Amino acid sequence: MPGREFFQTQPVSQALAGFRPRRRTGTETVRREDALGRVPAEPIRSGAELPGFARSTVDGYAVRAADTYGAGDGLPAYLDLVGSLRMGTAADVEIRPGAAVQIPTGAAVPDSADAVVMVEHTQVTMPGVIEVTKSVAVGDGVVRPDEDVALGKELVPAGRPLRAQDLGLLAAAGVTRLVVCAKPRVAIISTGDELVPPETAELSPGEVRDATASALVGLVEQAGGVPVSYGIVPDDVDLLTKTLTAAVAECDLVVVSAGSSVGARDETTAAVEALGAPGVYCHGLAIKPGKPTLLAECSDVPVIGLPGNPLSALVVFRMVGLPVLRLVGGITSPAPEPSVVATMARPIASAAGRLDVVQVSLRDGLATPLFGHSALLSLLTSADGYVVIPEPATGLDAGTPVTVTMYR
Amino acid sequence: MPGREFFQTQPVSQALAGFRPRRRTGTETVRREDALGRVPAEPIRSGAELPGFARSTVDGYAVRAADTYGAGDGLPAYLDLVGSLRMGTAADVEIRPGAAVQIPTGAAVPDSADAVVMVEHTQVTMPGVIEVTKSVAVGDGVVRPDEDVALGKELVPAGRPLRAQDLGLLAAAGVTRLVVCAKPRVAIISTGDELVPPETAELSPGEVRDATASALVGLVEQAGGVPVSYGIVPDDVDLLTKTLTAAVAECDLVVVSAGSSVGARDETTAAVEALGAPGVYCHGLAIKPGKPTLLAECSDVPVIGLPGNPLSALVVFRMVGLPVLRLVGGITSPAPEPSVVATMARPIASAAGRLDVVQVSLRDGLATPLFGHSALLSLLTSADGYVVIPEPATGLDAGTPVTVTMYR
Repeated sequence: MPGREFFQTQPVSQALAGFRPRRRTGTETVRREDALGRVPAEPIRSGAELPGFARSTVDGYAVRAADTYGAGDGLPAYLDLVGSLRMGTAADVEIRPGAAVQIPTGAAVPDSADAVVMVEHTQVTMPGVIEVTKSVAVGDGVVRPDEDVALGKELVPAGRPLRAQDLGLLAAAGVTRLVVCAKPRVAIISTGDELVPPETAELSPGEVRDATASALVGLVEQAGGVPVSYGIVPDDVDLLTKTLTAAVAECDLVVVSAGSSVGARDETTAAVEALGAPGVYCHGLAIKPGKPTLLAECSDVPVIGLPGNPLSALVVFRMVGLPVLRLVGGITSPAPEPSVVATMARPIASAAGRLDVVQVSLRDGLATPLFGHSALLSLLTSADGYVVIPEPATGLDAGTPVTVTMYR
Repeated sequence: MPGREFFQTQPVSQALAGFRPRRRTGTETVRREDALGRVPAEPIRSGAELPGFARSTVDGYAVRAADTYGAGDGLPAYLDLVGSLRMGTAADVEIRPGAAVQIPTGAAVPDSADAVVMVEHTQVTMPGVIEVTKSVAVGDGVVRPDEDVALGKELVPAGRPLRAQDLGLLAAAGVTRLVVCAKPRVAIISTGDELVPPETAELSPGEVRDATASALVGLVEQAGGVPVSYGIVPDDVDLLTKTLTAAVAECDLVVVSAGSSVGARDETTAAVEALGAPGVYCHGLAIKPGKPTLLAECSDVPVIGLPGNPLSALVVFRMVGLPVLRLVGGITSPAPEPSVVATMARPIASAAGRLDVVQVSLRDGLATPLFGHSALLSLLTSADGYVVIPEPATGLDAGTPVTVTMYR
């Protein structure tokens, strides 16, 4: 039997603050159509004003506002109707004092007009003349040429994954290509003599299909990374060192889900150390589940050794791996996570100084902790979300309001 | 000038409850690796027990629990060490009374053992014998063969988009392919004589690049649909009818972002009516922004006519279009949306009976409404999220706690 581990555990908050691997992805140019969720490397600024012309916001008549002053139901202003404007064309008509031109919503307002009267406040009582029954001020019914976006204004910031409406504004500004941070390539390595590929139809006694790698692929994709599978490596330091060397050369972040035995974890550490400086940052996080987590940096590539239980591995990857993935991939304003405020249905114990991540089901505003051994992956698929018990807390009483981060 | 519209507006909640187009996508079989976010058409059940064998949860010694009863630090139980077990192999050793076998975490426990003593509670003081200093009960340190998943148990439910951990459990159970609802094909049609493609480098006066279609593509993709672009159709009933006919034949949901003029909206209605029964469900929703929304069903395909302003169009598509997309695509348990509870920084007025969707920026728990004309798309890119003022409310005072749905 291999010797016991007595690693020093580090608080998760401290590890996340202190573990700052140098690796950053490069940049690449993508088409706007392919840019949903991509991360601009620099703020993108507008090369023109938007909408670029004075634009009517109502159906009505473009006028000189002064011609309507004092108009009301009892005393309409009478204006000469000098034509009508169409969508999508230049407003090449002159509005002399006392004149008006018909205009639809969204059309260009003539330079010589300074307001648009809504059709609801007009009447046509004789051909060629409109009655205006409500006065308008300068600018009423008009969007200024630079009111949506001024020349040079930031359309989207750097570091925030692009949302649907951001693509809309980029389209409006005629941006067809943009420079984004390359997606981090995330190596996924599974180790463990008990593991077989998920495609294995029949298991021999003692064999277990690799569940963690499939779930990590999903988490990496959702977070904007590119999962790169390195398959299952037996519990052997030399083989693991070889695979790790390839992964560090080819990827921006390496995740090893170690076999669950002490021996397998020792092998991950040994393989990381074989790769040289800067090496192990910490071995052991004050997190439950997930204590035997390893954080390391090989060359400039972060390497995260996850616990062997799939449940623990996935919890740790969410809490620790995703922040590192975002750091490497240039995401400074991550998309918000779904969460709800709920009431704890039952008390939960926790050790002070340790981050506890408790799987919960949620019904009618009540968060019920799902208890069971961390070897049970079904706890995670039954869960609607999780509650984090912060490091200083020693547990939560039933009835405590908590924030449940929801899985999606 | 075309005649005014005086459509009857319908409350959004009532429209969503009443507008139930019959269209549903078919099913298709996908590989598990391609199933993230896909929607199982039926619950997927396990064809075997998991883990499938009694599995040790600790590093230690497999024993007969009865042999440890009464053991303590002062009075250890002495057991014969009869070998050691390895990961991933059958536990083909017999534990006779008074015997123990060394076992790592995750390995198969022999049938003849009924508990595992943690190595921390043992000592090896002479070769071939261990001292057990703490008694164990039957089942301690062991996960039962069906404790994670029983035979026939539901692994994932129908109608809930698959999450990362669901892919993990499916992998553990050896599921390699699964039947899911086909992704809804969503036709996106833009109309408006003022619109030009976003690729247009230089605009002529009065022209506007089509922003709505690009943003809709993003929203459809995020919601699990397949956007199908039908480009920009001029404000012409015959052309629109032709495009709409093709879209209804080829897609599961049709979205028309109508030109913003009254005339363009009339044309959408006329085109929908040209396609025949069941036709228009309602024209006009009690929502701000977005009142001139059209809901219709052509054959069994839902058709949604969005307002002309990009901001209004995107708000309505979120509030009304996404629920319809989910209905068509078999999503009964949608992924939760990110939201936070915040305090309104300023009062907002609202009409009773109308759903108001207010864009807000969020800082330090304060939600500040972003005011400006709904023709300004930049309001939506500046926003962190939105606040919905429910139909019965007549506004919100400053200081009111509100739920902000966050954009991602």
